[in-house]
Amino acid sequence: MKVEIISIGDELLIGRTINTNAAWIGEQLSLLGFSIARITTISDSRNAIIDAVTKAYTEHDLVIITGGLGPTNDDITKHVLCELFSCTLIMHKEAYRTVESFIHSLNGEMNENNKKQALFPDKADFIPNACGTASGMWFTHNNAIIISLPGVPFEMKDMMTQTVIPKLAKTYTLPVIVHEHINITGIQEAKLAEIIAPWEQNLPTEVKLAYLPSPGIVRLRLTCTANTQKEAETHIQNAISELQPYIGTHIYGYGLSKIEEIVGKLLHKNSLTISTAESCTGGAIAKSITSVSGSSHYFIGSIIAYNNTIKSELLHVSTTMLQTHGAVSKIVAETMAQSCRKIHNTDFAIATSGIAGPTGGTAEKPVGTVWIAIAHKNGIHSQIYNFGKNRKRTITKTVITALNTIRLLIENKL
Amino acid sequence: MKVEIISIGDELLIGRTINTNAAWIGEQLSLLGFSIARITTISDSRNAIIDAVTKAYTEHDLVIITGGLGPTNDDITKHVLCELFSCTLIMHKEAYRTVESFIHSLNGEMNENNKKQALFPDKADFIPNACGTASGMWFTHNNAIIISLPGVPFEMKDMMTQTVIPKLAKTYTLPVIVHEHINITGIQEAKLAEIIAPWEQNLPTEVKLAYLPSPGIVRLRLTCTANTQKEAETHIQNAISELQPYIGTHIYGYGLSKIEEIVGKLLHKNSLTISTAESCTGGAIAKSITSVSGSSHYFIGSIIAYNNTIKSELLHVSTTMLQTHGAVSKIVAETMAQSCRKIHNTDFAIATSGIAGPTGGTAEKPVGTVWIAIAHKNGIHSQIYNFGKNRKRTITKTVITALNTIRLLIENKL
Repeated sequence: MKVEIISIGDELLIGRTINTNAAWIGEQLSLLGFSIARITTISDSRNAIIDAVTKAYTEHDLVIITGGLGPTNDDITKHVLCELFSCTLIMHKEAYRTVESFIHSLNGEMNENNKKQALFPDKADFIPNACGTASGMWFTHNNAIIISLPGVPFEMKDMMTQTVIPKLAKTYTLPVIVHEHINITGIQEAKLAEIIAPWEQNLPTEVKLAYLPSPGIVRLRLTCTANTQKEAETHIQNAISELQPYIGTHIYGYGLSKIEEIVGKLLHKNSLTISTAESCTGGAIAKSITSVSGSSHYFIGSIIAYNNTIKSELLHVSTTMLQTHGAVSKIVAETMAQSCRKIHNTDFAIATSGIAGPTGGTAEKPVGTVWIAIAHKNGIHSQIYNFGKNRKRTITKTVITALNTIRLLIENKL
Repeated sequence: MKVEIISIGDELLIGRTINTNAAWIGEQLSLLGFSIARITTISDSRNAIIDAVTKAYTEHDLVIITGGLGPTNDDITKHVLCELFSCTLIMHKEAYRTVESFIHSLNGEMNENNKKQALFPDKADFIPNACGTASGMWFTHNNAIIISLPGVPFEMKDMMTQTVIPKLAKTYTLPVIVHEHINITGIQEAKLAEIIAPWEQNLPTEVKLAYLPSPGIVRLRLTCTANTQKEAETHIQNAISELQPYIGTHIYGYGLSKIEEIVGKLLHKNSLTISTAESCTGGAIAKSITSVSGSSHYFIGSIIAYNNTIKSELLHVSTTMLQTHGAVSKIVAETMAQSCRKIHNTDFAIATSGIAGPTGGTAEKPVGTVWIAIAHKNGIHSQIYNFGKNRKRTITKTVITALNTIRLLIENKL
């Protein structure tokens, strides 16, 4: 079943409003087993609406339209759809009651604009709106279903959930579709694609693969269409089991969970505590850890030693050490981590020292060079990285890499 | 000049990714004087791409395509555009160097996928990508310009800003449009609208106003269309001068500058230094300050005292004080700030103590309660706030409010 989503509204075209409605509808319907063929965003203009809706119901089975149902003159969707589907607008009792009770609930009086909203196309099915004054319309035309809903997100979502989705589920026999995300770090997209190529080539035809990269992370999405939920889940599970040997330890989690949430759960579950001593990340690791609600169970504190005097005074990095090896060195990062662990009395302490850039790089230590050291009860783990020239990305990648190292240390019971 | 934006990617259709690229491009181009006619989102499929791009360049003057340029097999945009515009893919020296230097900067080796990315259509103009491996393509066909860019937002934005927008401005004669942003904090949107209503009603017809709110900040955008640059700038400047009396000290800056950049400049210019002692913000203030390149000139360090033992041991907050007043109190925040300033030997020290939530609130100190204290050479400034129930927003608002207070302290020569 092919679906097109049409979003109507000038504010979407000029970027004043980000089109979250289409994303939400797309997700809901694809989880139901519909295939979203296209999302078209157009202005509140008659010709644009006629062109887009005609193309949509000619090419696809289901068309969901949002926007342009408000009480003001620039809201023309209802009139244009009436013209397109040769309907007449009539006063609709239930639509009138909806508007009236809503206006009264706000201690207002029905005005002409409100009454206009109670006019409804004679050939459309009525979709009630419990949260606002604009009713939804369900048209059937040339074996296609065309549904028009208001653009206000919470009104649209309530109408989809209460009426549209249940009615669609009755109207169509839908396939079963299961999605799973595999979250991967510590490997670039191109390199990953090369390593898992044999696995990708052997995926069953029912299973589709998508790469969703972001700085420091590649998220793989597996989508399986099958006759039963169990069959789809089995396909996905088999695909994941077959993938693991290729990139096992690079997988940090599944679904939409973030690495700071996964590491947080691991620390909490094992009653472990953590602290950080940050130079180049300037508090970004602490911020990421504490962005998770409940992080006070395992996060104790941090020393952000941006200036070398603080590295010396609070983290016991001797000035000699700084002069001999430089702040961006294995021994300085390790000393920072060990002092940090002692000061905060934690199971783990992460230290970072690097050159985020854009300035401060040298031939020997170019911009993007970062030392990450992690002190733990059995010793210290430290490694050098180069995360490239972009300051923001270098900081983000350092955060993800440090947290992922903690995950590996815990999972490998180090 | 009519524009169509085409976003390619299954993840956009199924709602795993919200289409922020189209909103950003739509905003940038409409600010330049283009009219955005349609945004079309389609899957990574040959037929969908051919259908959408053909319709787009037939009906509109300019087509901006994002997505499907990655190194993996599901990225087919380049090949389909070559087919559509009868181009041949040839090894492109500059494209090859771009990929190579990017891979080398990450200590990687060129693999087959990387080499494929250096293939470029013979009839297209080259658009360099300073942030990634996928080059952009500029086609001219049937009097229309068709531009293809990667879907990774920061790569696309950099390429638009560095190359595409300047080249478009040369290619088309566009109306004179001048924009200015007025950045406001410390006042809510509804209240602001009420205060500046008389000013808004007296704006000249050439000047349009838009409210762009985000957590803790309201950005006003003034847009003026005129015959000459000078005329437009005069209109904007007059409007700003007339606005200042209404909300003077709430304006923290103009243009797209961030508050951490403005405060950074102020500190640097006045040779002042800063440190932070953070509890509820968990390093978010330090991260914000150090996100600015060159912040090492004025930022010395931080102590993130998430756990009360650290407040006592490192920031000299006595356990008696914690027991008597609680961690979220004026005296604890002020003691943290004073100790922090002493330890780091800085001109300013910011301390935060609050309940970010969602748990930990009480009747007396509900979720969202935050104390911000700032120690400086003439004493201490402290204030209590309630930033509401949303954890992320509370942290963001605390960061902005703390930095804005530093700005006011410096500007008022306190």
